[in-house]
Amino acid sequence: MTMDRRDFLTASSALGAAAAATTGARAQPRRRTSWRRIAVEEAFWTPAVAEAQRALGLSSSRSLDFKTTRGTCDPRTPLYRGLTDFDERLRVMDRDGVAMHLLSLTTPGVQMFDPETGTAMAHISNDHLADVIARHPTRFAGLGCIAPQSPKEAVKEMERSIRQLNLSGFIINSHTDGEFLDAPKYWPILEAAEGLDRPIYLHPRSPPDSMLEPFDDYGFHNARWGFQAEISTHIMRMHAGKVFDRFPKLTIVIGHMGEGLFGNLWRIDHMSDAGRKRRTDPRSPDLTLSEVLKRNFYITTSGVEHAPLMRFVMDQFGVDRMMWAIDYPYEDSARATAFMNQVDIPDAHKAQLFHLNAERIFRLPTV
Amino acid sequence: MTMDRRDFLTASSALGAAAAATTGARAQPRRRTSWRRIAVEEAFWTPAVAEAQRALGLSSSRSLDFKTTRGTCDPRTPLYRGLTDFDERLRVMDRDGVAMHLLSLTTPGVQMFDPETGTAMAHISNDHLADVIARHPTRFAGLGCIAPQSPKEAVKEMERSIRQLNLSGFIINSHTDGEFLDAPKYWPILEAAEGLDRPIYLHPRSPPDSMLEPFDDYGFHNARWGFQAEISTHIMRMHAGKVFDRFPKLTIVIGHMGEGLFGNLWRIDHMSDAGRKRRTDPRSPDLTLSEVLKRNFYITTSGVEHAPLMRFVMDQFGVDRMMWAIDYPYEDSARATAFMNQVDIPDAHKAQLFHLNAERIFRLPTV
Repeated sequence: MTMDRRDFLTASSALGAAAAATTGARAQPRRRTSWRRIAVEEAFWTPAVAEAQRALGLSSSRSLDFKTTRGTCDPRTPLYRGLTDFDERLRVMDRDGVAMHLLSLTTPGVQMFDPETGTAMAHISNDHLADVIARHPTRFAGLGCIAPQSPKEAVKEMERSIRQLNLSGFIINSHTDGEFLDAPKYWPILEAAEGLDRPIYLHPRSPPDSMLEPFDDYGFHNARWGFQAEISTHIMRMHAGKVFDRFPKLTIVIGHMGEGLFGNLWRIDHMSDAGRKRRTDPRSPDLTLSEVLKRNFYITTSGVEHAPLMRFVMDQFGVDRMMWAIDYPYEDSARATAFMNQVDIPDAHKAQLFHLNAERIFRLPTV
Repeated sequence: MTMDRRDFLTASSALGAAAAATTGARAQPRRRTSWRRIAVEEAFWTPAVAEAQRALGLSSSRSLDFKTTRGTCDPRTPLYRGLTDFDERLRVMDRDGVAMHLLSLTTPGVQMFDPETGTAMAHISNDHLADVIARHPTRFAGLGCIAPQSPKEAVKEMERSIRQLNLSGFIINSHTDGEFLDAPKYWPILEAAEGLDRPIYLHPRSPPDSMLEPFDDYGFHNARWGFQAEISTHIMRMHAGKVFDRFPKLTIVIGHMGEGLFGNLWRIDHMSDAGRKRRTDPRSPDLTLSEVLKRNFYITTSGVEHAPLMRFVMDQFGVDRMMWAIDYPYEDSARATAFMNQVDIPDAHKAQLFHLNAERIFRLPTV
């Protein structure tokens, strides 16, 4: 009996696997260390928008957003520099081996201005973003911001963002004036996203005034707590409002390893599934939240460096729909990159998280 | 070379393990099927309290709780029967092989009445509960309800519940008038629980009026969504309010596989840990939320029949601090019991969840 090279390799591999199984050790191939790293929830400010937001905060009420933006709109803060200085950002990216940032206007974007100002600010900001990308087309891509407070103008800006500015999707910083995307007035925006076949990145915003009080006195206006309650309620409202029945091809990206939903998901499905079966509520959506998440949502890892939760979400949700993100400059780029470099998941999954899925979902140029 | 019986068994076992490892199958010892099953979040109504709650709902405002209690306070509903008929309950327990229910007054308990009525109702309800237990001392144990709206009287009722009525701890149905247990006015209650060395079961309640609006129009007043946002905010407020620095031996039981917190926990720790290290907030607690959960909290499985989430929470939190619960009559007793009977965890862990931990934590009689 002769054995050619391929047979020999197959046999060796099988023997190796058997040996590893017998001793209880897993076969550990040399791990890949070089990746195209694309981070997809990376924040920036357009200075004119930041200044307008700062001015609004000085003249306005106690909205929790003004606590969130106090540190980001002040040109003297390190966060402001991180959000506006693209040379510094490129140095950090080079240092950490990050190929590309997918940029999005930081929360609350242009969503607190009156409709006319918001629309104008979105235009200014998207031009600024397109200019940054034009100067570094291999290092930056971006999401067009919109002012949902003027849905008709928002749709025009979405079309301009994709067709003229060549952006990769849209950023909506969650609620607008305490209203969520289940409200029919916003449905032209969802229709446009579906028609343009680009995702909406739904980023948290501070809880609206309509639920402010329990989040106010301990500083639960941001990612310590508050963001989580706000955005998960937003997603629940979109689901309950049958948005995904009406727009079955709409795609939504959410960050922070699923915004906490995976700790509640089975129970949410269970309670709403029961409601669906009993047909007690004619408004009940056609699909469970789990089903909608797996059809219409993508999830990023932004701000979470916890391998057990990553694996749990991967198992529940599927690695095909997950992407890596840093949440720069709010999170440390070096630490977020090191976590993803070393996390113990198969290289094939790491490639999906680091770049393959982002290239596909946001139609980014491949190299 | 001779081999005695012990050597032979050891060698066989090693061979069996090696064979199992090679084929990828795990050795499956015969699983235990008989357990002392104690369910620890089992709801009941005292008819007089249900009637007072119903009357309050007819005369009052749009509080979300009245949506929650519409189905539970009406004697014509199956839920009301489930909450009040103990003969029927015993038949269900016998059918499913459940040894004991740890009973607690269903949400919102006596917490919506004026202080005097609430105090009186708590007294009536705890007497009713003690009477039910006296009639079936091997089948029922219970938690004393209190009216936090009168903290001084609540402390007296806590002492009476333990010392005279021989109850096993306390039930607080989350917020009271939109205030949470971080408010210093409630600290005598926490001090009493610590002093009496019994746990407080913190059960969700509908979101308070101060955060009502986003939870109102889609029916997010209960466990579909709303309960989750309300109780996780309550726990966050207790942590941020340094309750567990002040009462380091206070023990809190939460249900529903950790009330969703485990989907957010790493990020919450990360954000508040950063705050702690920067010492930007002198009110910052001494321990992270994770550390507090592992020191001061117990978790029950109520209403969640999802093995992956159970294993994830067990890994993160520890099986020593977890207990089984059905959430009768809101959840199906047969299904909840079947889930726990068959879930693929070691028998030693199943014994802890089914009864050993509950016996220890609530000081229940063992058999």
